[in-house]
Amino acid sequence: MRLSRYFLPILKENPKEAEIVSHRFMLRAGMIRQHGQGIYSWLPLGKRVLDKVNRIIREEQDRSGAVELLMPTMQSADLWIESGRYEAYGKEMLRITDRQDRAMLFGPTNEEMITEIFRSSVKSYKQLPLNLYHIQWKFRDEIRPRFGTMRSREFMMKDAYSFDLTREGAEHSYRKMFAAYLRTFDRLGLRAIPMRADTGPIGGNLSHEFIILAETGESEVFCHRDFVKFDIPAEDLDFDNVEKLQGIFDQWTSLYAATDEMHDADAFDALPEGERLSARGIEVGHIFYFGTKYSEPMNAMVQGPDGKEHPVHMGSYGIGPTRLVPAIIEASHDENGIIWPDSVAPFDAVIINMKVSDEACGSVSERLYEALSNAGLDVLYDDTDERAGAKFATADLIGVPNQIVVGPRGVAAGEVEVKNRRSGERVAMSVDAAIARLTAGR
Amino acid sequence: MRLSRYFLPILKENPKEAEIVSHRFMLRAGMIRQHGQGIYSWLPLGKRVLDKVNRIIREEQDRSGAVELLMPTMQSADLWIESGRYEAYGKEMLRITDRQDRAMLFGPTNEEMITEIFRSSVKSYKQLPLNLYHIQWKFRDEIRPRFGTMRSREFMMKDAYSFDLTREGAEHSYRKMFAAYLRTFDRLGLRAIPMRADTGPIGGNLSHEFIILAETGESEVFCHRDFVKFDIPAEDLDFDNVEKLQGIFDQWTSLYAATDEMHDADAFDALPEGERLSARGIEVGHIFYFGTKYSEPMNAMVQGPDGKEHPVHMGSYGIGPTRLVPAIIEASHDENGIIWPDSVAPFDAVIINMKVSDEACGSVSERLYEALSNAGLDVLYDDTDERAGAKFATADLIGVPNQIVVGPRGVAAGEVEVKNRRSGERVAMSVDAAIARLTAGR
Repeated sequence: MRLSRYFLPILKENPKEAEIVSHRFMLRAGMIRQHGQGIYSWLPLGKRVLDKVNRIIREEQDRSGAVELLMPTMQSADLWIESGRYEAYGKEMLRITDRQDRAMLFGPTNEEMITEIFRSSVKSYKQLPLNLYHIQWKFRDEIRPRFGTMRSREFMMKDAYSFDLTREGAEHSYRKMFAAYLRTFDRLGLRAIPMRADTGPIGGNLSHEFIILAETGESEVFCHRDFVKFDIPAEDLDFDNVEKLQGIFDQWTSLYAATDEMHDADAFDALPEGERLSARGIEVGHIFYFGTKYSEPMNAMVQGPDGKEHPVHMGSYGIGPTRLVPAIIEASHDENGIIWPDSVAPFDAVIINMKVSDEACGSVSERLYEALSNAGLDVLYDDTDERAGAKFATADLIGVPNQIVVGPRGVAAGEVEVKNRRSGERVAMSVDAAIARLTAGR
Repeated sequence: MRLSRYFLPILKENPKEAEIVSHRFMLRAGMIRQHGQGIYSWLPLGKRVLDKVNRIIREEQDRSGAVELLMPTMQSADLWIESGRYEAYGKEMLRITDRQDRAMLFGPTNEEMITEIFRSSVKSYKQLPLNLYHIQWKFRDEIRPRFGTMRSREFMMKDAYSFDLTREGAEHSYRKMFAAYLRTFDRLGLRAIPMRADTGPIGGNLSHEFIILAETGESEVFCHRDFVKFDIPAEDLDFDNVEKLQGIFDQWTSLYAATDEMHDADAFDALPEGERLSARGIEVGHIFYFGTKYSEPMNAMVQGPDGKEHPVHMGSYGIGPTRLVPAIIEASHDENGIIWPDSVAPFDAVIINMKVSDEACGSVSERLYEALSNAGLDVLYDDTDERAGAKFATADLIGVPNQIVVGPRGVAAGEVEVKNRRSGERVAMSVDAAIARLTAGR
C-alpha cells in the first residue's frame, strides 16, 4: 500500500478524551474514530488489525471443530420472552420498535437465537456434539462506555455455542474451547490467565474469564505467579482426546486464580507471599457452561440412545475482537507508540523513503516494495513528501514491526537501514540482504 | 469438512413461504434460516458462499484503489438532521432511542457518516482522490420484505464513497467503480448490464444500476441485445488511465439500456426489433454521482491549488452481497438444485462415500479428502450413514461443482466416478486420475 493513496489520519496532538494508552494511540494512529458515546468506526489501519485478530480467532475455532455461521444483529423480543430473559436483561438491552409495532432488540448475545436454530433442525444425539459460532456486532447500552473500543456500546463479539447430549459431553466441549482460547490468546501475543468467574446474566455454574494483566485493567484479580510458566497446547492437539483436554484443563485450573467477585481471600493468603500475584486485569474472553438453562424453557430436545427426549446441554464462549485490539496495545507499547506482535501487525514492513524527490531513493524503494509484496508481505510504502522526522514518528506510532529506511546517503553506498520496532535495533545492509532478511521463511 | 461434523440442515420438503427458486433452494440447502420478517441467519453453507462473494468484491474494490474501513451500524440522528435527510428518509429508516433518550438509527446507508469522517481529517486536494468503502450490515424497514435475502430488511452492503476536488475528477472516480463493478459481476458468473437509473433518496444526477436478467426480477428493464457481446475490463486495467476508463464507460453506455423508471419508449421502439430486449431484471449494484449534495450542507471542504476552499465532489457505490447470493442462484440452477460458479462455490468438491461401513471405500475417501485438501481445495466429505440416493440428492441440491463418488464396486476395480454438476458428465477413473483432474492448475 502506498501511503499517498491510503487513508491514515494521524493526530499530532494527544486527544484529551483518551484516559488510557491504547485509546490514545488508537486515536493518534488513525485506527478508529468515535461517533457518539461508545460507537466507533474502524479506519483502514484499525480494520487491518481487526481482520488479523479475527483470522486467528477463526483458525482456532475451526481447529477445535466449531462451525461458523452468521446470525443477524436484530432479534425478535419473543425469543427472549420465551427464555425468560427479556425483562431480566435490563437497560443494557437496546429495545427497538419497528414500523409494524413489533418489539425487537439489537442482540447483546445470542443464546436464544442459536437455541432456536438448533431446535428447528437437530433432533437426534447422533448429530451431536455440535459447536456453532459467529463473529457479529453486538450492542449493549452501557451507562458508562469508556476507554475507546475497550468498553464500547457497539462491539464485535465471537460467540460460540456448544450442544451436547450429556453433562459430561458438554464439559468436554467446554474444555475444547478452554484449550482453543489458550491457543488464540497466545497467538495474539497475550498471556491470558483463566480465572473462575461469576456467570452474570448468562447463567450457569461453571465459568472462566480469560484475563490479561495490565495496569489499566478494569478489575482487580488474584492469581498464582506460576501461570506464566505453563505451556500452551500445541497446534496438533487432538480435540477429541478427552483425557488430554482434561489434563490441560486440570493444569490450568490447578493454581489459585480468581476475579474480584470470586476472590477467596483466605485461600489466596494461604499461598507463600512470593507466589501471590494481585494485579489489575482486562477480560478478553469468557466461557460458560449452563446446562439446560435455555434448552428447557425453549424446548430444545434431542432423542438419546435410550429413545427418550432430553433437553440439550449447552455452553457459550465469547471473545471480543474489538476489545482485544486495545488489550494488545496495553500489553505492548512504548512512549513512541504501538509495538504490534507480528501476528496482528497491520503491515509487516514499512518502507520509509526519506527523499521522494531523489530518483535513486525512489527506485530502491520501488524495488523493495515490489520484492516484499511479491513475497506475500503486507507492505506500507511511505512515498509522501513529509519530512523524514515525521515519517519516523508515524512508523513508530503505528507500530509496524520492520522499518526499512531508504535515504540518499545510504543508497549512494548501496545500503538501506533496517530497524526493528520492538528492539530498536538498526542495521545497515544491502537491498538484497534486506529483502532476504524480511522474506526469510516465506 | 466432514459432513458428520458439519451443520447442514437440509429440508426434504419445499418450504411453502418461498415464492422464487433461489429462496426455495437457499432454505432447502440449509443456507439460511428466517427470524421474523426480512431477517435471516446465514447458516454455515450460506456463510461460505457469502464469504467468497465478499472476497471477490474486496479484491476488485482494492484493485481499483478503494480503501477498506468499517463504520458502525448505529448512527446518531444529528448527522442526518445536518444533511437534511432525517425527515425525508421516511419510515424505512429504523429509528431508535437509547437509554439516555438520544435519537439514533440503524444505518440504511452511510453518506452522512463517511462525510463526517472525511471532513474531520482531509483538508487539502493533495490528499485526493480518495475512495473509502466498507462491507457492513444495513437495515431498511421495508413494508414488504420478500424473496428471502433478495429483499430483506437487515442486509449486507458494500458501500464505497469517492471524494474528488472537481466534477471531472469525480466522474473519473465514477468510471473506476463502473469498471470495477463490471469485473466483480463477471467474476461472480453474472452478466450485469449497466442501466441509467433514477437516483432516489441518495440524490444526484448521474446514476447507473447494474441489472442481471432473470424471470424473477422485480422490475421490467429494456436494453439492446448486444450487451452480451461486450468484453469485460482486463485484470491488469490501469485505473489511473483516464482515457481507457472513458472508453470502457462509453462502450458500455453506447447502447440503449434503462430501467422502467427511466424508460424512453420512443427511443427503444426506434431500435430494430431483433435488437430489442425487454425482460425482467434484478438490481445487483447501484452507483451514484451526486456532486456536493452532502459536502455543502455538511461543510466538507478541501483547499484547492488556488488556495480557496471547495466543497468536495462525491459519489457512492453499492453492491448487496446478501442479495447477490440469491441472484447467482436465479441465474444458475436446475430442477435438482443450485449450480454454483466455481468462484463462489461453498466447496470445490464433495466426496460421496456410498458405503461408510466398507473399509476400502473409507480408505479411498480419506485419501481423496487428504490429497484434495492439501492441494488447497475446499472439500466436503460425505461420511454420513445416509443412503446413497439421499447423498446424491444433497450433493446436487447444494450445487458443489465436482462430485466424486466412491462406491464398493468401483473401488474394487480401482476406480471412482467424477461427476460435473453443471454438465452432468460422469467419468470413471482411477483415484490418482481424479486427484490430478481436480487439482490441475493448483
